[in-house]
Amino acid sequence: MSGPDFSKSELIPAIAQDRESGDVLMLAYMNQEAYEETLKTGRVCYFSRSRQKLWRKGEESGNVQQLREIYYDCDADTLLVKVNQIGGAACHEGYKSCFFRKIDPATGDVEIIGERVFDPAEVYKKS
Amino acid sequence: MSGPDFSKSELIPAIAQDRESGDVLMLAYMNQEAYEETLKTGRVCYFSRSRQKLWRKGEESGNVQQLREIYYDCDADTLLVKVNQIGGAACHEGYKSCFFRKIDPATGDVEIIGERVFDPAEVYKKS
Repeated sequence: MSGPDFSKSELIPAIAQDRESGDVLMLAYMNQEAYEETLKTGRVCYFSRSRQKLWRKGEESGNVQQLREIYYDCDADTLLVKVNQIGGAACHEGYKSCFFRKIDPATGDVEIIGERVFDPAEVYKKS
Repeated sequence: MSGPDFSKSELIPAIAQDRESGDVLMLAYMNQEAYEETLKTGRVCYFSRSRQKLWRKGEESGNVQQLREIYYDCDADTLLVKVNQIGGAACHEGYKSCFFRKIDPATGDVEIIGERVFDPAEVYKKS
């Protein structure tokens, strides 16, 4: 057997990294079905823990993630997907990366890093 | 309140990324104590799920991770630590990154990417 091991845990964390810039964009989870769909379609599919269903990243915003490369780790319990992030932003708050808040280790103060690529109110507006 | 939210989950995944190369090195978990120790000491400390105790990365191999920057995500349930990886390898199997196995989406075949930096048998030998 090779590849991620879903027998230990139904959900495996998947780190999405921008293939070009190397920026870590987000972390989400895949179950076996999401993993297999990702390989088959070349578009990254996660499993949403809050909605308890497959989450085709970008299905609402259009900001899909095209799969470029996929790796798994030494314990076979984490995935790394290198992607082309359509729209330039992975975060539902409009930032390129979900990791847009930097903590100062000395003080605990938080600083916003990076600019908003889109306005969430505009992208996710209800029709 | 700012910073990661340990009230939803005692353990939060933490992605370690090489500050210089941008390589994603590994994913491990932190509890609040590990997080606070990391900020205070500037050396990355995780919580080992298998051993159920604080895991000062590199305590056995010497390959510690010096904290350079720390971020948390939009949901406050994942951390990203940018580090200086002493010894050049984060993986206990001797590779620079734990993500040294690449999956071919078309065939599922696995290819080893990257070279061993150290010999695990040598580094973790019993004295």
